[in-house]
Amino acid sequence: MDNTKIILDENEMPRSWYNILPDLPTPLEPPLNPATNEPIGPEDLSPIFPMALIMQEMSQDRYIDIPEEIRDIYRLWRPSPLYRAHRLEAALKTPARIYYKYEGVSPAGSHKPNTSLAQAYYNMKEGVERISTETGAGQWGSALSMACSFFDIECMVYMVKSSFYQKPYRKSLINLWGGTVIPSPSNQTRAGRSILEKYPDTSGSLGIAISEAVEDAATHENTKYSLGSVLNHVMLHQTIIGQEAMAQMAKVDDYPDMVIGCVGGGSNFAGISFPFVQEMIKDGKEIDVVAVEPSACPTLTGGEFRYDFGDMAQMTPLLKMYTLGHEFVPPPIHAGGLRYHGDSPIISRLYADGIIRAEAYHQTEIFDAAVTFARTEGIVPAPESAHAIKSAMKGALKCKETGEEKTILFNLSGHGHFDMGSYDSYFNGTLSND
Amino acid sequence: MDNTKIILDENEMPRSWYNILPDLPTPLEPPLNPATNEPIGPEDLSPIFPMALIMQEMSQDRYIDIPEEIRDIYRLWRPSPLYRAHRLEAALKTPARIYYKYEGVSPAGSHKPNTSLAQAYYNMKEGVERISTETGAGQWGSALSMACSFFDIECMVYMVKSSFYQKPYRKSLINLWGGTVIPSPSNQTRAGRSILEKYPDTSGSLGIAISEAVEDAATHENTKYSLGSVLNHVMLHQTIIGQEAMAQMAKVDDYPDMVIGCVGGGSNFAGISFPFVQEMIKDGKEIDVVAVEPSACPTLTGGEFRYDFGDMAQMTPLLKMYTLGHEFVPPPIHAGGLRYHGDSPIISRLYADGIIRAEAYHQTEIFDAAVTFARTEGIVPAPESAHAIKSAMKGALKCKETGEEKTILFNLSGHGHFDMGSYDSYFNGTLSND
Repeated sequence: MDNTKIILDENEMPRSWYNILPDLPTPLEPPLNPATNEPIGPEDLSPIFPMALIMQEMSQDRYIDIPEEIRDIYRLWRPSPLYRAHRLEAALKTPARIYYKYEGVSPAGSHKPNTSLAQAYYNMKEGVERISTETGAGQWGSALSMACSFFDIECMVYMVKSSFYQKPYRKSLINLWGGTVIPSPSNQTRAGRSILEKYPDTSGSLGIAISEAVEDAATHENTKYSLGSVLNHVMLHQTIIGQEAMAQMAKVDDYPDMVIGCVGGGSNFAGISFPFVQEMIKDGKEIDVVAVEPSACPTLTGGEFRYDFGDMAQMTPLLKMYTLGHEFVPPPIHAGGLRYHGDSPIISRLYADGIIRAEAYHQTEIFDAAVTFARTEGIVPAPESAHAIKSAMKGALKCKETGEEKTILFNLSGHGHFDMGSYDSYFNGTLSND
Repeated sequence: MDNTKIILDENEMPRSWYNILPDLPTPLEPPLNPATNEPIGPEDLSPIFPMALIMQEMSQDRYIDIPEEIRDIYRLWRPSPLYRAHRLEAALKTPARIYYKYEGVSPAGSHKPNTSLAQAYYNMKEGVERISTETGAGQWGSALSMACSFFDIECMVYMVKSSFYQKPYRKSLINLWGGTVIPSPSNQTRAGRSILEKYPDTSGSLGIAISEAVEDAATHENTKYSLGSVLNHVMLHQTIIGQEAMAQMAKVDDYPDMVIGCVGGGSNFAGISFPFVQEMIKDGKEIDVVAVEPSACPTLTGGEFRYDFGDMAQMTPLLKMYTLGHEFVPPPIHAGGLRYHGDSPIISRLYADGIIRAEAYHQTEIFDAAVTFARTEGIVPAPESAHAIKSAMKGALKCKETGEEKTILFNLSGHGHFDMGSYDSYFNGTLSND
C-alpha cells in the first residue's frame, strides 16, 4: 500500500510565506477610514498593530522570509502531515484520490498558531509587552495565549460571555499557557461598561469583544491588538500550509484537481489554497478551488460584495468584502469559527473574479460527514473542518458516478476534542439543521 | 539547531512486537486458578479471550510478527514522533539532553490503540462479533471503540458510573466511533443487578465494571472480553513504542542513560522500556529505567510482591505482582489511568529483580511539571503522562547540579485534552495534594 502519511523533514519546511497580493489579477481595493471614506495608511493602524505586521498587510513582495525564531517554534508540529485518505476512499468506493493536510497536530489543535506565533514574534521584536484580543469559541484565544507564552508577552483575551461559560475548556487552555481570559462584555473597558449598563444580562457577541480588545490595546501602555483571521497578513502566515501540501503531493507525484477549505474569516482556506491559486494565475493550472461555508452564515454564497465594517460596533476600518451586513447574527451553529458576517478581502476578490467557487451546507449533513470521517480515518474533526470533509466527499462521490480519477485535497484545519458536546447534540438528536 | 522532531517513515515502522518473556532473568510465575491454586492453562481463558491472544500471553517467541492489516491502521499515526525537548532543556538550564516519545498523536489521544487494534484484529480473525470491556476515565474504552469500528465489531463498554457522568466527553468519543457505553453497575448483568439491589446509589468502581464486562463476554454469543493493561500480551503490543524510539535515537546517534514511563497497570511503561531492558539484560547496557507512580497509589514503592486478584470482585485468576491489595481504593486523583491496586506481572518481576526502579510523586508537583511542560513544549500532557515529565525534569535538574550531560528519554503517553477540568482544579487551588 502507498504511504498513509506523506511527511516532510524539518529542513524541508518552507522558508518564506507566500504573499498573493502582487499576483491578484484585480488589485485589492484599500480599506477606508469610515469617517472620511479615504484610504487608511500605516499610521492609522500603528496605535493597535506593530509596524512589521502593517507593512506585511500592504506588502507587494511575493515572498516574505519566515524568521528563524518562528521556524524554530513551528518545528514543534510542522511540517504537518499530509494524509492519503485510503480508508475514506474505500468506504466511499470512489476512484478519486483524497488527500488531507492535518493542522490539528499543533498544540492548540488548529492552524491558528501559524499566525499567532508570527504576530507574537513581531510584537515582541518591537518591544510590545502585552497583546489583547477577542475570541468566540476560544480557538484563536488559546492559540494566541500559547504564542505569547513562547515570547514572554502578556496575553489578554476578551471571550464572548456565552462561550466563556459554555466552552470552559478552551478557557482552561488559555489559562494553562499563561493568558488571562475574562467574559465580554466586561467592566474593564468603557465599551464593556456601557453595554453592561444598558444590557446587564447580555450574553455578549464577537462584535462587542472586538470593541473591548481594540480599546484595551489603544488605552494600555505597550499593548497592541491581534486578529486571528480576515486581514491580509493573517492569510500570508497561513500559506505555509499550502506550500507544504504542494511539496508533499510532489513527493508522491500527484497534483490536485480540487482544493477545498472551510471559510469563516478565511484564514485556513487561504492557507491551503493560495499557493495553488498562484499556479492557476501564473501557470494556467486548472484547479477547482472550493470555499465551504455553513448555510447558516452564507457570506460568499449569499452575501454582497461591498464595503462594510469588520465588527458590529463599527470600530474597524471599512473593508471591501463579501458580507451579510455587520449586524448579521447567525444562528448558534456548532462550527463557531465560521460564524462571521464578512470574509477576507483577498478571498472576496478571488470569488468575485470567478477564480474560486463556494459551497454551503447545513449542519446535520456536516456532522454526518464528520462521523463517517472519524469512523474511517480515526481523527475526530472540528465541526468547522467537517465542512471541508463534506465537500471533499461530495466531490469523491461525483467521481464515483462519472468514473473520473480526480485528485482531491482538503484542509483538515483542526481536531474536535473541545467540541464533543456538539457531537453529543448530533447523537442525541438535538442538533438543529441550520 | 538540531531537529525538534525525529521522525521515521512508515516503511521504517517495526514489523514485529518484542516479547520480553524469554529474556527475563527470572521466569514469570504462572497465574493461578483461585479455586484450586493450580496454574491456569489456555483452555481456562478461552471463554473470554481469542486463542491467538492467549497464545501470545504465554509465548516464548522473542518476536511476534505484526500482521499487515494492523500495520496498515497503525500508519494513521505511527511511527509516532520522538521529540528533542530543546525548549524544556533551555528553561531548566540543564546540560542533559531530554527526548520524549509522543503517543498522543493517535486518534484516541494515547498509546492505548497500539493494543486495542491488535486485540480487535485477532478477535475479528476468530469470528468474534462483539467485545466487552470496562473503562474508568474512558481512555481505554474510547481506544477499543475506535479499534472495533475499524474491524466492524460491536463494542460494549461498562464505564464506572461516577466517570460516566463526570467525564462525559470520553463517553462521547466512544459513541462517535460507534461503541455502546453504559454506566456501571448496570442492570444488564447479574453482577450489576446484585450490586444495584444492595447499593442503589453506588458510584461504581473499576472492580465492579470488570465483573460486568467479564460476565457479559461469558454470557453473550460470539462475544469476548478485552483488557487494556496488566496482561503480557498487552505489554507485548506496546513494545512498538520503544522499538521506534530506539531507531529514532540511533538516527541522531544518541542512546538513553535514563528511560522513564508512568505506571498504572504498566502498559505504556512496558512499551517505552522493554526494548531497552532487553539490551540491559542481553548486552549489558547500563540504563536507569524508572517507573513513575502516584504517591496516592504506590503499587511498586509501597506494595507487596505476592499473588493477588486483578479485580475487587475476585473474578480474575491470581497474578503474582506488586499489589496494594485488591480491595485498596486510592483517592480520586486526576491521573485516573494510574489508579490501579496491582501492576503488570512482568514489570513486577523486573522491579523485584532490581532491573528497574520506581519513584512516586504527589499530585501538585505533577501538575507543576505539566504546566512547565505546556508552557515550554506547547503540548498539553495528560495527568498520567505528567508523572514521567516530573521524573525527567528531576533527572535533568540533577544533571544541572552534577554537570553530567545525560541523555533522558521519557514516554509522553497521551495528551490532556479531555482532562482540562483537572487543570482547572490546579489553577483554582482545589487540587488535593494526594
